[in-house]
Amino acid sequence: MGWGGAGLALGAVAAGGTVALTRGGDATVPVAESGAAVPFHGAHQAGIATAVQDRLHFAAFDVKTKDRAELVQLLKDWTRAAERMTAGHEVGEGAYGGLPEAPPDDTGEALGLKPSRLTLTIGFGPSLFDGRFGLAGKRPGALVDLPKFPGDNLDPARSGGDLCVQACADDPQVAVHAIRNLARIGFGKVAVRWSQLGFGKTSSTTPDAQTPRNLFGFKDGTRNIAGTETDRLAKHVWVAGKGAEGPAAWMDGGSYLVARRIRMNVETWDRTPLAEQEDIFGRDKKEGAPVGKAKEHDEPFLKAMKPDSHVRLAHPDTNGGATILRRGYSFTDGTDGLGRLDAGLFFLAYQRDVRTGFIPVQTSLSRSDALNEYTQHVGSALFAIPPGVRDKDDWWGRALFA
Amino acid sequence: MGWGGAGLALGAVAAGGTVALTRGGDATVPVAESGAAVPFHGAHQAGIATAVQDRLHFAAFDVKTKDRAELVQLLKDWTRAAERMTAGHEVGEGAYGGLPEAPPDDTGEALGLKPSRLTLTIGFGPSLFDGRFGLAGKRPGALVDLPKFPGDNLDPARSGGDLCVQACADDPQVAVHAIRNLARIGFGKVAVRWSQLGFGKTSSTTPDAQTPRNLFGFKDGTRNIAGTETDRLAKHVWVAGKGAEGPAAWMDGGSYLVARRIRMNVETWDRTPLAEQEDIFGRDKKEGAPVGKAKEHDEPFLKAMKPDSHVRLAHPDTNGGATILRRGYSFTDGTDGLGRLDAGLFFLAYQRDVRTGFIPVQTSLSRSDALNEYTQHVGSALFAIPPGVRDKDDWWGRALFA
Ligand code: HEM
Ligand code: HEM
Repeated sequence: MGWGGAGLALGAVAAGGTVALTRGGDATVPVAESGAAVPFHGAHQAGIATAVQDRLHFAAFDVKTKDRAELVQLLKDWTRAAERMTAGHEVGEGAYGGLPEAPPDDTGEALGLKPSRLTLTIGFGPSLFDGRFGLAGKRPGALVDLPKFPGDNLDPARSGGDLCVQACADDPQVAVHAIRNLARIGFGKVAVRWSQLGFGKTSSTTPDAQTPRNLFGFKDGTRNIAGTETDRLAKHVWVAGKGAEGPAAWMDGGSYLVARRIRMNVETWDRTPLAEQEDIFGRDKKEGAPVGKAKEHDEPFLKAMKPDSHVRLAHPDTNGGATILRRGYSFTDGTDGLGRLDAGLFFLAYQRDVRTGFIPVQTSLSRSDALNEYTQHVGSALFAIPPGVRDKDDWWGRALFA
Repeated sequence: MGWGGAGLALGAVAAGGTVALTRGGDATVPVAESGAAVPFHGAHQAGIATAVQDRLHFAAFDVKTKDRAELVQLLKDWTRAAERMTAGHEVGEGAYGGLPEAPPDDTGEALGLKPSRLTLTIGFGPSLFDGRFGLAGKRPGALVDLPKFPGDNLDPARSGGDLCVQACADDPQVAVHAIRNLARIGFGKVAVRWSQLGFGKTSSTTPDAQTPRNLFGFKDGTRNIAGTETDRLAKHVWVAGKGAEGPAAWMDGGSYLVARRIRMNVETWDRTPLAEQEDIFGRDKKEGAPVGKAKEHDEPFLKAMKPDSHVRLAHPDTNGGATILRRGYSFTDGTDGLGRLDAGLFFLAYQRDVRTGFIPVQTSLSRSDALNEYTQHVGSALFAIPPGVRDKDDWWGRALFA
């Protein structure tokens, strides 16, 4: 991406990245593969309601500096870098023409690649509000400590974090490049606490797209909030009104993100009869239709499903209306030392308030979900996702540190 | 992929997968993104000289059964499954319409995806010839035990293996799906010993393509053997003549694969001045030109490079003509517990004989390469790659077990 004349006319990119792009010499390519840029500035951060990209690199950071001013400067530097990278540029101007005696401004491995719909979404974890930076009085009520759910087997080394950055892109090298450059810019001030690569999106936020399948082979993301459903987003995803009062005023236009690393025992699953698999979800495998219905997008009739089926238990009607926007990715991280793939779902869910979103749903699921026999939650984190960066003078967290 | 009417006209796929494909409703997409199928049958296995795909899932297996006939049956079953999957079909006919009381024939997560140029390449490790299966007399002289090189810090849990399967595809979900289904079919007979996901190809085997960049930001694969260079392939990659005599007769048309998991200390690298980075490789970073030359594909003048530069030490002229076909991938496997990315190069090299290929090159590099300050070899394996499967009656390893 980036330097002089390297192919891509960035001017051709429109809001939402949904415009087909023509590159020198190439034929017009379909939107999803176009490599377009997604606008970074706006009322909300990109990477939530914007169309889901194919790949993820997610990183949680511990803040190492004790100096508030240094942290603020880092957030400003990160914002500027994020603006450049999401537009398809290198981080610095002098990455390759720079001073030979200085390290390059950009690590370079994304040079020549398209923006690939890169989005970078920042979040602030509960531990950031522990008093180190004078933010204790600004911790929103919704930024709770998540309860321990039955069956949780959480690894602290894969949980928590003062900050997070979710990098999504259609090209993994672009997502990895972005996280790595933010880590590089933060050297000495922040350290990567854990990170997760996701290779297959398990949700759809575009109503017309083919629903992707998860590692259990089922369509995942059928009943989700679409990025175009402005009303449902306002109701269930974006913080506003009471959620943005008092200590949480800086969260107006933001959201809350729950990240759960869920191991899926694919080997056991693969030996489970088809009918049992379908009972567990309450949907058929091929079409994805709810029990007793014919089509994927038919309205689920919950009473036709087994009481411990995943869809019945996760459905808003079972949980006082609780509705979340799912945006997770599959992962495969090699082997677990027992001849099994270390594979699963890196579950990401956005909501206006976890107390009326993830927590009630996961309370139902962790108690009774038939799926639990095949899954285990091994990592967990919660982040307050501030509103979008408005313009070139704004920066990630400005209202929080104001 | 696969079932009744799911989109893709497989008849449209031609040798090498280099024909643009039109799918129902879609615009014509460029070749690399077309999702075409690569032919499975041929004199050589696909996945070596065929165009490099974007993603990798590589798995090494230990054979658990002690029964030769059972192993043979597994190799036959795997071959049939590989034929189907590389053509874009599910493994079994009855994956979704099958018996409800039986586990599905296919795990299903690739359903609806394109073949994505999937190639599956099998290999046999030295340990397979230890006598368990009566193969000791068929171990080729070239299937040596690799020497320990200076600096090696090999993890046995990421090294070796009786069998390997290299799955390459443009969609990682397709590559992961393939390995997982082979593991499923092999349940009880083989167990995954280790596996590696690769997300960014670091080499090009197509002379006209843009050379990809590795995680140190340099173009990687500039001087490689192209899949179209029949003469160089015959000379350096395919086993024939003396290499296919005596115990190695079954290897005629095969090759040898070295796999090395190489950690790259990206954080230290990113703080290294540009000029030093360029000296270490002996090429400039932006264009990729050899020292003193202007263009990437200009002939390197080795004497202009520092004596410990990577390109000078790796060049055939330094190593008695040793020439290998590189086909590696970048990886990022989360964090190493010290706040650093566990990132690097999963180096894959094919050659006719490792004794005149990888071993002399790595002997030079491991002794003197300036790059060693930033890298560490943490996994290693060597596999004999049998020739291609000729037709529907042939199977992986038939000549070996004959
Ligand atoms: C590995 C773990 C999981 C797998 C494999 C999985 C898979 C699925 C599948 C296949 C569906 C049906 C299709 C759809 O509407 O998207 C579904 C629905 C859903 N899941 Fe999960 N899920 C997992 C974990 C969770 C967790 C942890 C939560 C939240 C706590 C959750 C919340 C939901 C919700 C809200 C729905 C939609 C229910 C409806 O409105 O019909 N899932 N999930
Ligand atoms: C992390 C480790 C490594 C990195 C980052 C790396 C990177 C590079 C780069 C950037 C080039 C120049 C461009 C090109 O011609 O492809 C190159 C060339 C080459 N490398 Fe490596 N390499 C690594 C390890 C190895 C290893 C282990 C071997 C073999 C033992 C090897 C063999 C070669 C060869 C044969 C060439 C081409 C030399 C020539 O003919 O000019 N590399 N490598």
